[in-house]
Amino acid sequence: MELSKEIYLAIHSVIGSRSVVLHEPEFTGKEWDYLKECLDSTFVSSVGKFVERFERDLEKFTGARHAIAVVNGTAALHIALKLSGVVSNDEVLIPALSFVATANAVSYCGATPHFVDSEDSTMGIDANKLRIYLEEISRQEGQFCINKSTGRIIRAIVPMHTFGHPSDIDQLIKVSKDFNLFLIEDAAESIGSFYKGRHTGTFGLMGALSFNGNKTITTGGGGAILTNDDFLATRARHITTTAKLPHKWEYRHDEVGYNYRMPNLNAALGCAQLEQLPQKISSKRNLFNLYQAAFDQIKSVKLISEPHNCISNYWLQALLLNTENEQERDEVLQLLNQEGYMSRPAWIPLHKLPPYKLCPRMDLSKVNSLATRIINIPSSSGLVKSLI
Amino acid sequence: MELSKEIYLAIHSVIGSRSVVLHEPEFTGKEWDYLKECLDSTFVSSVGKFVERFERDLEKFTGARHAIAVVNGTAALHIALKLSGVVSNDEVLIPALSFVATANAVSYCGATPHFVDSEDSTMGIDANKLRIYLEEISRQEGQFCINKSTGRIIRAIVPMHTFGHPSDIDQLIKVSKDFNLFLIEDAAESIGSFYKGRHTGTFGLMGALSFNGNKTITTGGGGAILTNDDFLATRARHITTTAKLPHKWEYRHDEVGYNYRMPNLNAALGCAQLEQLPQKISSKRNLFNLYQAAFDQIKSVKLISEPHNCISNYWLQALLLNTENEQERDEVLQLLNQEGYMSRPAWIPLHKLPPYKLCPRMDLSKVNSLATRIINIPSSSGLVKSLI
Repeated sequence: MELSKEIYLAIHSVIGSRSVVLHEPEFTGKEWDYLKECLDSTFVSSVGKFVERFERDLEKFTGARHAIAVVNGTAALHIALKLSGVVSNDEVLIPALSFVATANAVSYCGATPHFVDSEDSTMGIDANKLRIYLEEISRQEGQFCINKSTGRIIRAIVPMHTFGHPSDIDQLIKVSKDFNLFLIEDAAESIGSFYKGRHTGTFGLMGALSFNGNKTITTGGGGAILTNDDFLATRARHITTTAKLPHKWEYRHDEVGYNYRMPNLNAALGCAQLEQLPQKISSKRNLFNLYQAAFDQIKSVKLISEPHNCISNYWLQALLLNTENEQERDEVLQLLNQEGYMSRPAWIPLHKLPPYKLCPRMDLSKVNSLATRIINIPSSSGLVKSLI
Repeated sequence: MELSKEIYLAIHSVIGSRSVVLHEPEFTGKEWDYLKECLDSTFVSSVGKFVERFERDLEKFTGARHAIAVVNGTAALHIALKLSGVVSNDEVLIPALSFVATANAVSYCGATPHFVDSEDSTMGIDANKLRIYLEEISRQEGQFCINKSTGRIIRAIVPMHTFGHPSDIDQLIKVSKDFNLFLIEDAAESIGSFYKGRHTGTFGLMGALSFNGNKTITTGGGGAILTNDDFLATRARHITTTAKLPHKWEYRHDEVGYNYRMPNLNAALGCAQLEQLPQKISSKRNLFNLYQAAFDQIKSVKLISEPHNCISNYWLQALLLNTENEQERDEVLQLLNQEGYMSRPAWIPLHKLPPYKLCPRMDLSKVNSLATRIINIPSSSGLVKSLI
């Protein structure tokens, strides 16, 4: 049987005949109650009790000391990078295999993305390969890591937890310490994912979450900054609310700030969604188990599972074609989409996009290979029932 | 009688004894219906029919050929400036009397605000004074206006329609043409305001609206770009949605883009609010008329009325103290706020804020004078009934 047909039948055995998108939100909790309450209060904008509550609920769920709710994940990452000290002319190490927002946030700081290769097991940054690379191309000057060929400061490293699977955080922290780099986590895809029992996004100096409509939980548009640092949390709150100093009536702003605060209306949705997060993640695990059983017999493809010592939120289920089958990817995508199972490949690697073609990079052979072999298949929590 | 007491009594005669904020939204239309419909559709995020509809409704209301809904007014202005060609090291002429977002949007482009004085009648940019100033400090080089002392290109001029009152647009257009400047309108405060029968924000190359919670209508957080230029509209849509090229499954982005699209959830609120805009403006006109009658007897203060040939939305009602009474401003603010009538002075002029203290500026004597004499008093559309 053709591989595309085999894959189609495996998905069919799990979710049956129906037309489904890659990922859609579900509103089966108190969404409507909270939205109505928000509307009745007239506080729909940048001030209101749902914003505060959403932040406290996020802190409770993630274990982060501080959560600051903002308009989206891109804004969260922008501010996290800026407050960590990323400035014009810096370089920032980011995975070449990521959504474009990771690179854009670096650009907004006037800095340059420097692309890093991935490892097979997590699809995230390969810490060992990066260490060997940095030993070769960088030198330490005082507390700075300097790119020997560009002369620029390599200021930070931004692991991204691909499709919800945590990167190899322990090793990445070691690299960041050994080379004097700030660690900022792009946890846009990984709310509900844990590395050795600790929530992703809480290991680095700061972390960024996303609540876009395609994520595990949504606020319409939204994101959050996580940090355990009191000073940075205060700075983040200040700079995301136009850097206005508190005063009864005066409008005094003490630095260039941003209009990045999450509106109360969106936070109301978020509070209801967060209450359902454990059930959603349970459904997604259940879906993974069913897919795994269905794909077990297909030798040319592997369903990606959570890394060792990790709990993944299984945001997007991902198939990995064997190397010898990579040329069949588009045929698979064609059939699945045609049959109503919305599926897509990984993002085009960032170093191949026009705005980032000239950025520095290490050998990216693993990313180039993964990008031709990954297929994300329907992953919504509503596809199967929660087991809790 | 003390001036503060006189002013208090005048306000009391209009709105009675109650505790009121400066401006609050009212949700008396189909807000609940549309929010529920949005939630039921599951399309709460960056794609959905309410975003499209809100844009079409805005085009109809304003007469702009294109409206592009974005996350807030700051984002709208940022993109409008960027697409007009404002780049690093440019200067942009903006009123010193404005909310900080006007200057911040210039900063986000890597450009420098160049502060301009206001005129009494509109509180907006004084076109004649600006013309005389530019003749003195600038020279034309090809199609560029060069600041003779800094050597930088003065790229654009950004009139802001203060508290909803249209600036002197005809004269400003002439200045922009004579000195080769792009005209971008900061119409954040002026939805529903018209200059010679045409909606504010539709005269320049691009215009920016805001739907923050304190504005005449709100989407929680939100804004829109207005333009009559097809090419710029296409560019604005593209760059505010991460510059992703349309494709069934590929994620190809052809430039550094932004995550600035308004979520469908917020647009749902906007559609309902826009339906009520004529009534809201009628209420605000009615409130102005009642305040005007009440303040008519107080010689030391003037209620600011719409400029000649203009229809103002009367977003914020503004009192102007006579010059000899400016030292009584804080006493008035103290009493009004203490008695429950939330009131505030104009913004601290932008050239006095720490991040903008060193920016170039013309003589700003009028702004400095206005800023010590303006008091905004309670202005919500819900304070009095609509007459339509």
